[in-house]
Amino acid sequence: MSRPAPYADRLHEAVERAQNPVVVGLDPHLALLPDEFAVARDRAASRRERAGAVRDFLLAIVEIAAGKVPAVKPQSAFFEVFGADGVQAFEDVVAASKEAGLLVIGDVKRGDIGSTAAAYAEAFLTGPAGEAAPWAQPYLCDAATVNPYLGSDSITPFAAACEAANAGLYVLVRTSNPSSAEFQALHLEGSNDTLADRVADAVHGWGADVVGESGWSSIGAVVGATHPDELYALRQRMPRTPLLLPGYGAQGASAQDIKGGFTEGLHGALVNSSRGILYAGAKRPDLHWKDAASQAMDDMAKELRGALLN
Amino acid sequence: MSRPAPYADRLHEAVERAQNPVVVGLDPHLALLPDEFAVARDRAASRRERAGAVRDFLLAIVEIAAGKVPAVKPQSAFFEVFGADGVQAFEDVVAASKEAGLLVIGDVKRGDIGSTAAAYAEAFLTGPAGEAAPWAQPYLCDAATVNPYLGSDSITPFAAACEAANAGLYVLVRTSNPSSAEFQALHLEGSNDTLADRVADAVHGWGADVVGESGWSSIGAVVGATHPDELYALRQRMPRTPLLLPGYGAQGASAQDIKGGFTEGLHGALVNSSRGILYAGAKRPDLHWKDAASQAMDDMAKELRGALLN
Repeated sequence: MSRPAPYADRLHEAVERAQNPVVVGLDPHLALLPDEFAVARDRAASRRERAGAVRDFLLAIVEIAAGKVPAVKPQSAFFEVFGADGVQAFEDVVAASKEAGLLVIGDVKRGDIGSTAAAYAEAFLTGPAGEAAPWAQPYLCDAATVNPYLGSDSITPFAAACEAANAGLYVLVRTSNPSSAEFQALHLEGSNDTLADRVADAVHGWGADVVGESGWSSIGAVVGATHPDELYALRQRMPRTPLLLPGYGAQGASAQDIKGGFTEGLHGALVNSSRGILYAGAKRPDLHWKDAASQAMDDMAKELRGALLN
Repeated sequence: MSRPAPYADRLHEAVERAQNPVVVGLDPHLALLPDEFAVARDRAASRRERAGAVRDFLLAIVEIAAGKVPAVKPQSAFFEVFGADGVQAFEDVVAASKEAGLLVIGDVKRGDIGSTAAAYAEAFLTGPAGEAAPWAQPYLCDAATVNPYLGSDSITPFAAACEAANAGLYVLVRTSNPSSAEFQALHLEGSNDTLADRVADAVHGWGADVVGESGWSSIGAVVGATHPDELYALRQRMPRTPLLLPGYGAQGASAQDIKGGFTEGLHGALVNSSRGILYAGAKRPDLHWKDAASQAMDDMAKELRGALLN
């Protein structure tokens, strides 16, 4: 398996091919899984059985997503609930997604001091002690999300991993949750900047060395679609940074809200939906849950195309 | 197994029993492991074999630490490097540590939006969907470290887990790494506070509902021992908050540097050392690595007692 193109360029090509910027968030909320996977909720079942049910549900989602969307984003927390068995399920889902031609963004939000951050970069992007050809390892992700609270030396090892493995990164800048303003929107002394603005400037800097032929950096940023005005301003601060926009659908953001993150047609950002797609069947009793999920992906792709191409 | 006392009270008692506030950081840096565990570094070996070597090394360290120190702090990153096999090793080390009477602080630094944070709290503190008696599950930690960047709704599920399982939490406030000042020490508009100060105030508030009979909260804070002046000031802002102080030894902080974190004799903080203990054998070719590690624990306990009780 030959060295892949830089993440930014693979992302650009995947969006072009799918003709939409949808990323399906693989968040297996146990309470919401379709009934045929109810064993995942069964406290009397073993962790292995429960994790296996989660895996089987997501493998079905991945099969539906293949060819429809450019990327999936497995949320590590819901797998880690089942410990080692859950992490095995995570790896199986990552491998199946890549096999199906989908980019995989590991939503792990790790952040730690330098030598520990290097270990996390190995865990998700390059393999233990740096695999010779990490892209050939089925369990490694194409990109990962990281937390900036510890500053540059917590990001540098991930940035190095991006270069070594042609992988990508999404640094949390302004998250989609209700209390994200508590620290991220604090105004800093001696400037008009918020903390999120300052993190955005740092992300722009960290990404300068890994700009691909597409003109985009492989170091991206997470900005909640639930803050449309800030999204536009942050896009201006990070002109080459691919954005990952959570908050669409279940969290309240609309297709119009995400426009500020895009620069050229369908490019510049990925828009995540998790619950709105995975559990679409709960609102469509007339359809099998697979058909409801498939329909929800198509609807979202169409909505975004409508908002971005007109 | 009956419900344990609140984490804060168990911590107080453990420090009293050990007569020192040392926490041994279980950071299995592959490059530093003693030669008999060299298979952990061998790219040709399977992940299971490599993770097994890491586990065996740490089980020996745990055996040495039992009865000497109050707590251990396994660093998740170094286990996650080996994927599901690594997480199995993490669980084995957690179980052995608890069995040996040590408190276990899972150094996982997780942080995510509410429903995802709830899943992480399950993964490390309460078990999937909330075990009826989480304290009886060998793989769950007594406490976990978390990242505050996403604000209150990312902490609330962990705080609820602390109440449900009588577990503990350590929120990152001011970390020990060189670039921690980059965001954490930024001054905020309209006050003399830094970001870390504001996070400290939040931690004090989050912990108000889980104060034990010892007078300490079960929600603690991570403050680097590498910042002695700020340590003292942060201690004043969080008077009931148990501190976890990384940065001692290998990262440069001395026994004098950590005094500002303590309030009454040996109480108020735990001081972490990882490399200085685990790999003490590298600097003591005259001793077996186990004896060197044992000696390093004793020396650190004596140094801290000297600084704190005189």
